[in-house]
Amino acid sequence: MKGFQKLTFTYEALKTWLNTLQIEKCRETNVPLTEALNRVANETIVARESLPRFDRSAVDGYAVKAEDTLGASQFKPLLFKLSNKDEIEPSGPRNTLQVWTGNPIPKGANAVIMLENTTKKGDKIEIAAQLAPYDNISRKGEDLKKGETAVQTGTRLNPYHLGLLAALGITEIRVAEKPLIAVMATGNELAEAGKPRNEKQIFESNRVILSAMCAELDAEPLDLGVVEDNVDEIVERIQLGLKIADTVITTGGTSVGGLDLVPEAVNIVGKPGIIVHGVALRPGMPTALAAIEGKPVIVLSGNPVAAIVGFEVFARPLICRLLGMKKTELRPTAKATMTRKVSAALGRKVFIRVRTFEKEGDIFAEPVSARGSGAISTMTRANGFVIVPENREGISEGELVTVHLFGDVEREEGNV
Amino acid sequence: MKGFQKLTFTYEALKTWLNTLQIEKCRETNVPLTEALNRVANETIVARESLPRFDRSAVDGYAVKAEDTLGASQFKPLLFKLSNKDEIEPSGPRNTLQVWTGNPIPKGANAVIMLENTTKKGDKIEIAAQLAPYDNISRKGEDLKKGETAVQTGTRLNPYHLGLLAALGITEIRVAEKPLIAVMATGNELAEAGKPRNEKQIFESNRVILSAMCAELDAEPLDLGVVEDNVDEIVERIQLGLKIADTVITTGGTSVGGLDLVPEAVNIVGKPGIIVHGVALRPGMPTALAAIEGKPVIVLSGNPVAAIVGFEVFARPLICRLLGMKKTELRPTAKATMTRKVSAALGRKVFIRVRTFEKEGDIFAEPVSARGSGAISTMTRANGFVIVPENREGISEGELVTVHLFGDVEREEGNV
Repeated sequence: MKGFQKLTFTYEALKTWLNTLQIEKCRETNVPLTEALNRVANETIVARESLPRFDRSAVDGYAVKAEDTLGASQFKPLLFKLSNKDEIEPSGPRNTLQVWTGNPIPKGANAVIMLENTTKKGDKIEIAAQLAPYDNISRKGEDLKKGETAVQTGTRLNPYHLGLLAALGITEIRVAEKPLIAVMATGNELAEAGKPRNEKQIFESNRVILSAMCAELDAEPLDLGVVEDNVDEIVERIQLGLKIADTVITTGGTSVGGLDLVPEAVNIVGKPGIIVHGVALRPGMPTALAAIEGKPVIVLSGNPVAAIVGFEVFARPLICRLLGMKKTELRPTAKATMTRKVSAALGRKVFIRVRTFEKEGDIFAEPVSARGSGAISTMTRANGFVIVPENREGISEGELVTVHLFGDVEREEGNV
Repeated sequence: MKGFQKLTFTYEALKTWLNTLQIEKCRETNVPLTEALNRVANETIVARESLPRFDRSAVDGYAVKAEDTLGASQFKPLLFKLSNKDEIEPSGPRNTLQVWTGNPIPKGANAVIMLENTTKKGDKIEIAAQLAPYDNISRKGEDLKKGETAVQTGTRLNPYHLGLLAALGITEIRVAEKPLIAVMATGNELAEAGKPRNEKQIFESNRVILSAMCAELDAEPLDLGVVEDNVDEIVERIQLGLKIADTVITTGGTSVGGLDLVPEAVNIVGKPGIIVHGVALRPGMPTALAAIEGKPVIVLSGNPVAAIVGFEVFARPLICRLLGMKKTELRPTAKATMTRKVSAALGRKVFIRVRTFEKEGDIFAEPVSARGSGAISTMTRANGFVIVPENREGISEGELVTVHLFGDVEREEGNV
C-alpha cells in the first residue's frame, strides 16, 4: 500500500472540478429588506427615481437666494422679509421662507441659511452669513441619479445597501436561496458529543465546525450524522444527502488506508464520481473532490484542521458560486511581520496558523505551535492563516506576510 | 437660536454615559452548540478531560516500539511479527499491531508507522522506515489538558470554538441573551418605504440600517416605526420602546432647530434623561446620549451617515457591554496609503469614508467624494472609515492610515 501517486495543485483541482460542475445559476427567493442582511443579491437594482428626488434642505433654517446674502456677516447682518407665498419672490426686497431639514427647496431659492445664523426680529429675519449657491442643499440625485445602479447582482448585502434600497422605496429584494449543504462524518472512532462512547471513541467535532463555516457564508447546513466505516452505509448516507441537499461534504475516511472508504463509496453513488483525490495542500492532502449528476461532493480529511483548510480552499469558492457571486469572497487580510521562521513543504500550498497581534502600532504574526496538526485548539488560539505558496520552502523571521484573518487582530487598548 | 454651546469629546461622552448606566451583567440563555455561532459566551468553559483523552494514532498503520525500528529503511526493511495479544510484547522478537487513525496506542508501543511504509508478507509486516518515539501519535492532552480553559467568558464564538467544545463532549453553552434594541425614526418628512407619500416626503431608511447594524453585533432589533415631529407622540413611543426593549435608539430631531424635539421628549420620559447632547464628532455632531431608569437611550441624527457614525461610536460599545464583552469589538482594519489629501475639522473626531483597494500588492484608501454628507450611496461605494483624531486638521496625500473596514478590500484577482 502506497501513498498518493500524484498530488494535484489546488488551483488545478478547483478549476477541473468547477468546470465539471458547470454551476451557471443559483436558486433564488424574494425576502423583505429586514431579512436581507448578509444575503447575496440576485438582481441588479437600478434607481427608479433620483435620490433625493428633489432639492432638499440639509438643515433647519431659511431658504434664500444666495445672491441676496452678499456681504452679510455676524457684524453686518442683513434683514429679510418673510415671503407670504410658497416661493421666494424673484424681484423686490430680500425675502425668505422657513424650511426644516428635508423640506423641498422653495421655488426661487438656491441656498439655505442655518437657523443658528439667523435672528427673528418681529416679522423680519436677520441673516448673519453670506451664502454660496446650493449651500446647505442636498441636490436632487446627489445620492443616486435615476437609472444609476444601487446594488449589483452578486453583492452581499450590508446594512448600507439595505438603507440605499429603503431610500428608493424598495421593500423586498431577490436574493440567492441559501444553498443546502449536507455535512456528515465517518469513522468507527467517533461518538456524538454528549452521547455514550466506548473506550476507543472520541467525540465528533467536525460537523459543528463545517456547519458553522457554511452558515458564515450564508449557506444552510444540514446534519447528516456520523456513519461507521462501512461502504454500504456511507453510500446510503451520501445518497440521502444528495437527495435533499445541493452539496454533500464528508469528513474522515479519505486517506489511502484500509478504512478509507469514502472515495470508493462516492464512486459507487454515481457518475462521474471522484474527479480529484490527493491535493498539494497541507494540511488537507487527502481531500477529494467529486461530482454526482451535477451535484458537488467534497470529501474532507477527518483531521479537524485539515478539514477546515480543505473547506477554505474548496467549499468556500463552491458556495460563493452557488450564491451567484462572481468571485470567491475572501477573508479580511492584514499585513504582518512574522515573529519566527517556519518551514513548509516545497510543492504544497501550506496553511500556517498564526496569532496576529498589534504591538506599538505594528502588526505581528506568531505561528501557533502545535505538535499535532489536528489540534483544534490551535484554531482557537490563532486568528488567521499565512499561506505559503507551492514555490516556497517556508517563511523567514521578520518577513512581511499577508494573514487571512478568521478572528480579530489582538489590539492594544485604544479609543475609537 | 444658536448652535451647541459646547461639544463633548466622544470618549468623554462615552465614559460619562457608561458610568451613569453602570451595566454590570447581561441576561443569559443556554443554546445548543449548533445555534451558538457568533453568540457571546457567558461562561468560561474548562476542559473536563484531556483532549485527546488517550494517546491516539494520527495515521493508519502499525504500532511499534520506536526502538525496534532502528536502522530500518526503504532499502533495508525490517520484519515484524503481528502480536497476538492487545499489546506490544516488551521482550522477544520485534512485534507490531495494526491501528487505524484515532485508535488508542496499544500498551508497549510508542510510535506508529504509516501503512504506506509497510508491506504485508504472510503473517509478518515489513517496515521500511525508522521512527522516533511518538512519531505519528497524537499525545493525550496535546490539544487541551484537563483543567485548561477552552473558551473564556465574553468570547464571540466562531466555528473553531464550537468544534473545541464539541470535542470536549459539550452540547450546550450559556451565552448572553441578545439585547433587544428598539429603533425609531422621527420626522414629518419621512414616509415608510413602499407606502404612499406626499410631495414633500422621502422614504425612511435609517431604521433598516441601524437594525442591521444591531443584528451584525448579535443584538435583536425591534422596529418602533416612524413618528411625526410631535413631542407627545415621541414621548409615548420612547416609553413603549423602554417598556419592551433594553435600549431605545432614535434618529432625527436632535439638532437645535425648532422641530428637534427628541432630546426634550427624552427628558420628559424619565430621569436622569439626556446626559450629553452635542459631541465633537463629524458627521454625528447632534448625537445625544441618555439614560432613563438605568436603560440607555441613544438619540442619533436623522442624516443616515451621521446616524451610522453615531451608532459606531456609541451604540457599538454599548451593545458589546450588554453582551458581557470585556472590550468593544472593533472592525477589522487595514493599513493603507491615502490617495489624496482630505481636510478635517480640528477638535472633532472626523470619520472619512474611503474605498480601500489593492494595487500591485499595496493597499490604498481613496476618499469617497460626496457633496452631501448624508448620501447613503457613499457608504455603499466605500468599504471603510479613516478616523481623523481631534488633534489633526486632516490627512495628507500619501500618508499611511488605518482603515476601519465595513466591507472587503477590493482585491486584484488571485489564487487562494
